[in-house]
Amino acid sequence: MINVGIIGASGYTGAELARILINHPEARITVATSRQYAGRRLSDIFPHLRGMADIICENLPVDELCARADLFFTAVPHKTAMDLVPDLLAAGKKVIDLSADFRLRDLAVYEKWYQPHSSSHLLGEAVYGLPELYRQEISRSRLVANPGCYPTSIILGLAPLLAAGAVLPQTIIADSKSGTSGAGRVAQTGSLFCEVHDGFRPYKVGRAHRHTPEIEQELSVVSGESVKVTFTPHLLPISRGILSTVYASLAPGFDRRSIDDIYTLKYRHEPFIRLLAEDIFPATQYVRGSNYCDISYKIDPATDRIIVMSTIDNIVKGASGQAVQNMNIMCGFAETAGLGIVPFFP
Amino acid sequence: MINVGIIGASGYTGAELARILINHPEARITVATSRQYAGRRLSDIFPHLRGMADIICENLPVDELCARADLFFTAVPHKTAMDLVPDLLAAGKKVIDLSADFRLRDLAVYEKWYQPHSSSHLLGEAVYGLPELYRQEISRSRLVANPGCYPTSIILGLAPLLAAGAVLPQTIIADSKSGTSGAGRVAQTGSLFCEVHDGFRPYKVGRAHRHTPEIEQELSVVSGESVKVTFTPHLLPISRGILSTVYASLAPGFDRRSIDDIYTLKYRHEPFIRLLAEDIFPATQYVRGSNYCDISYKIDPATDRIIVMSTIDNIVKGASGQAVQNMNIMCGFAETAGLGIVPFFP
Amino acid sequence: MINVGIIGASGYTGAELARILINHPEARITVATSRQYAGRRLSDIFPHLRGMADIICENLPVDELCARADLFFTAVPHKTAMDLVPDLLAAGKKVIDLSADFRLRDLAVYEKWYQPHSSSHLLGEAVYGLPELYRQEISRSRLVANPGCYPTSIILGLAPLLAAGAVLPQTIIADSKSGTSGAGRVAQTGSLFCEVHDGFRPYKVGRAHRHTPEIEQELSVVSGESVKVTFTPHLLPISRGILSTVYASLAPGFDRRSIDDIYTLKYRHEPFIRLLAEDIFPATQYVRGSNYCDISYKIDPATDRIIVMSTIDNIVKGASGQAVQNMNIMCGFAETAGLGIVPFFP
Amino acid sequence: MINVGIIGASGYTGAELARILINHPEARITVATSRQYAGRRLSDIFPHLRGMADIICENLPVDELCARADLFFTAVPHKTAMDLVPDLLAAGKKVIDLSADFRLRDLAVYEKWYQPHSSSHLLGEAVYGLPELYRQEISRSRLVANPGCYPTSIILGLAPLLAAGAVLPQTIIADSKSGTSGAGRVAQTGSLFCEVHDGFRPYKVGRAHRHTPEIEQELSVVSGESVKVTFTPHLLPISRGILSTVYASLAPGFDRRSIDDIYTLKYRHEPFIRLLAEDIFPATQYVRGSNYCDISYKIDPATDRIIVMSTIDNIVKGASGQAVQNMNIMCGFAETAGLGIVPFFP
Repeated sequence: MINVGIIGASGYTGAELARILINHPEARITVATSRQYAGRRLSDIFPHLRGMADIICENLPVDELCARADLFFTAVPHKTAMDLVPDLLAAGKKVIDLSADFRLRDLAVYEKWYQPHSSSHLLGEAVYGLPELYRQEISRSRLVANPGCYPTSIILGLAPLLAAGAVLPQTIIADSKSGTSGAGRVAQTGSLFCEVHDGFRPYKVGRAHRHTPEIEQELSVVSGESVKVTFTPHLLPISRGILSTVYASLAPGFDRRSIDDIYTLKYRHEPFIRLLAEDIFPATQYVRGSNYCDISYKIDPATDRIIVMSTIDNIVKGASGQAVQNMNIMCGFAETAGLGIVPFFP
Repeated sequence: MINVGIIGASGYTGAELARILINHPEARITVATSRQYAGRRLSDIFPHLRGMADIICENLPVDELCARADLFFTAVPHKTAMDLVPDLLAAGKKVIDLSADFRLRDLAVYEKWYQPHSSSHLLGEAVYGLPELYRQEISRSRLVANPGCYPTSIILGLAPLLAAGAVLPQTIIADSKSGTSGAGRVAQTGSLFCEVHDGFRPYKVGRAHRHTPEIEQELSVVSGESVKVTFTPHLLPISRGILSTVYASLAPGFDRRSIDDIYTLKYRHEPFIRLLAEDIFPATQYVRGSNYCDISYKIDPATDRIIVMSTIDNIVKGASGQAVQNMNIMCGFAETAGLGIVPFFP
Repeated sequence: MINVGIIGASGYTGAELARILINHPEARITVATSRQYAGRRLSDIFPHLRGMADIICENLPVDELCARADLFFTAVPHKTAMDLVPDLLAAGKKVIDLSADFRLRDLAVYEKWYQPHSSSHLLGEAVYGLPELYRQEISRSRLVANPGCYPTSIILGLAPLLAAGAVLPQTIIADSKSGTSGAGRVAQTGSLFCEVHDGFRPYKVGRAHRHTPEIEQELSVVSGESVKVTFTPHLLPISRGILSTVYASLAPGFDRRSIDDIYTLKYRHEPFIRLLAEDIFPATQYVRGSNYCDISYKIDPATDRIIVMSTIDNIVKGASGQAVQNMNIMCGFAETAGLGIVPFFP
Repeated sequence: MINVGIIGASGYTGAELARILINHPEARITVATSRQYAGRRLSDIFPHLRGMADIICENLPVDELCARADLFFTAVPHKTAMDLVPDLLAAGKKVIDLSADFRLRDLAVYEKWYQPHSSSHLLGEAVYGLPELYRQEISRSRLVANPGCYPTSIILGLAPLLAAGAVLPQTIIADSKSGTSGAGRVAQTGSLFCEVHDGFRPYKVGRAHRHTPEIEQELSVVSGESVKVTFTPHLLPISRGILSTVYASLAPGFDRRSIDDIYTLKYRHEPFIRLLAEDIFPATQYVRGSNYCDISYKIDPATDRIIVMSTIDNIVKGASGQAVQNMNIMCGFAETAGLGIVPFFP
């Protein structure tokens, strides 16, 4: 049993970490922080947690934090995370950072898309926390950069194909759709019920979304060449869920059979990947609340394109669930510990 | 570890039984039946269960069924259940019936609201499966009539007050609102997305809903006199959740303080009742997916009325979760076994 | 053709006034104000109005406002309205105030529920803008206090019964459910999509909602005695629509037939009231976007209670549509001018 | 004033025709047919139309139908339409067919995707009812094949670019998302509220949807070469609205400026096309209920792809509104007559 701290507990990913950790057999939440809600119970902020996570949120300096837990989830905005993580590591703590601050290995790329980096010396050490790609590195790491939600869905769908040379890297288009929890719990007009409900829209179209370099970094690693993707995010009138529909041209010689083999070989032992049969397509509501990523694909024979469909719950496999999966790997627990949550339908 | 069967696995309550039992430490599903989907995996019907409940649905005669499990959940329509239950009991099985067939103790009342009863000899034996009222009887029973969803929400909110004489029984009005899963998975125009979404409506107004006699039966028992309630169900554009707003006139001499005492005394040790502080009101989204019933109340000083608000997930505490709670009690398991599911929000 | 101004155009009621007035045969919008969005097109704030209401929002002093229109809709918060209206009237303008500032005739009641009133000398002059009750007074008025959304639904349902002595005034309970647009376009956590979607909750329970005195004022007028109601508002996960389920005890001697006569006599010539047949119940989605109020009722014979169900679109008949109806009456236009919008379904 | 008939009035497109025609200055509904609901008022089937479209649905032979109206909307399934249209034309009536039966000019293509055609002699005469492309032909036609909803959104977005040679025809990918009304009012499990709500999914992926040949036919005409598109439909948890995100590679020499010119030149006088400024993206909720098509685009400089976003209300511009627009053109009415409906938001 380890003691864990949630830094930034009052957002949706913080609440979701609590939801998962409440039933975790090897970890217990011993500290939760919130500037805005210091002094209030986590279950006052999130009444669904009443009786289950009544821990009082605090606003503590790093040294007091460090005295209270062995491992920390930093569920704070980028920029805030980079200032906090070095001290946690210096105190000998393990850190899983849910912000974007340690996901990009190239400092210049980070600073182009975000802002100057105060802890760039850690970029080389941080491991990109996608267990399906970096399990070994995660197990030896003290700092894991938990992937973004869109990148998780897209990379899990494409990586086996790119690694096998089955698709042409320069042809990738990712049309992604996300639930509104991805916008966080910030009070802003665009996230109001009346603005989102019964509607649908794209946003940050055309190389404008900050997940673009993260997607390209990882797809370039697996393909061995520099990949540029066209990535279009859209806002769904649902709370949770991302579904990415990814298009690419097949490389010569690949077909349904060989692609099946590629996916099976790569994912057959993965506990959180579910490969669907042909003509069974994924749906966000079938992974809701769980750590699963459901993947299906279809080949369009008239154009030799493959359409890969990949869906996750954006705050579970796309954030807090994946973070717990990383914790399990870092700490030597069963990788599925605490993550046996059955998808929630209807 | 016991073997359990789900008879009628292709409805929402059947799927929900599976969702809960998958993680139950003392029970495993060894048989699931469906006429319509015989020969198909339960996870083909309900893809969220892929990899977790891939059991093949069957259409079996009762004797074969009985050879396959120790306890059965009958998640079939009323009328079907009454014909099936006697054989299961005769084979020495425990039965938790989720239909209405064994909820009403008075045969005449049953036959007035439903149809002739083929197993009326069991009405006296069946225990109304509301653990907060009948825990002892359930523990000794072989046949539990799992309560209706609306009655669960209303009775749990009112029973302590009626038992204590704190409200006038002839003044009760229950204005209830239910999510659409309560209508089941039947393909009917009125349940289509386009008919329900972004809308709200009452239905079966004025002593027309079959849960009325069930509510009156149990409220009459606790109050010791014949209670007539005005009960109005409404259809919410949500999947799950019931919230009942119940009105009654306070009996002379009762106030916030004495009512607080009544509820606390009755429910302080109940694992699935959460009493909320004054001016904290329940919301369906805070119990979603869990077995909790959240209760709050407010007194209107100008009219001496009490407004009791009670919310549950209609297919958990209002159906499948309560059924598993009953199983736990009948089998001597920890009452909360398998039911530690944290509410799902957002 | 008259020139009208919308003061406070950037809220949902302001946008809805624009939506209706765009197609009004006798009025055109000549000025729209917004502090926050001054200098921007109304259609930049509300893109659905692109090409139809591209007027530029301004922040003008009252005298300049007065030079630009003959009639004003004040769609601003209470307190702001009371400071503005006297100058508009002094300049000879007609005013329809959508705030609460001129709805309550009793200054003490207003100041108890709101704050001190700076224009109390106008309380006696202002006419409560419910045409079904005050058509004559509205036609002669220069200041109309447009009713609240909840009161409109409740009063239209109950007034004929109270006027006829058909129900006992001291037994009234109004259980009301409103869409989220009623909370306005304010960026607040409680109105976020993720907080409201797939959920349902009561709020301001037990004589806490400011519409209570307004409801009681008007019901007292029609009944001829002081009426106290228990009023419980709830928040629906829909954009628009209020449905009120109102309970009262029938007075001796009244039945379906006599109640039918009462409603028919009162409402048969009303252009925006639709009376439904027995066992046909209203639904918010059938009035959505229109100025209709659909009313139905049912008698519970076991308790001698009547259940009146009344539904409106909260920002049409509950706000902007009723305001235009009042404008039509004040200006001598056809009462239905511009209000022939067909309900929007599905 | 002409008399019009709605054949197949009990579906969503039938109801929507009624909603629009109620306020049409030049047309009145004189006959409405329904097999299932013959003898019942249209407003009994669709209560939102109460008091506005109380016409009684009938089930009439063609000759009686023909005696009752001058122009017919056939809002029936494909196959049914092809058997009915010849008799209507023979009686001298104008016909706007909302089914797929007369959209494909190539009989072989039709019979490959649908079934044998009983009225193939009319395929050459029927005009594809997209006014922005075929206004002249429509004005002279007696048989208009009203376009499919997905094709309308995609063709309106792409046609100007293909006509100008601005994109490479072999690179087109259309990722489309539709509201659930597109599935019609058929009682089927997959369209139930609980199956669709709070979820999102692709369907008929990879050259499986019957709108594919319709899209390819029209894009081939405008581009002058045979176009194959990859088209992926998805199901949104909204009632109305289609948004298509369309990807293509830019032809050499084209940029933001030249593309702006192309769209402006083509669409500046179109009453129902709204072109949005750069970085203003369309949203289904801003066209809801109206006949508008909102179009925006963005160029991804790193890949030289253009992303065209196009949104319509699938049962207005994607069906019934476009049908009325076609009627207006065929009958010489103002093209916008009856179609000044303001989009409905929130």
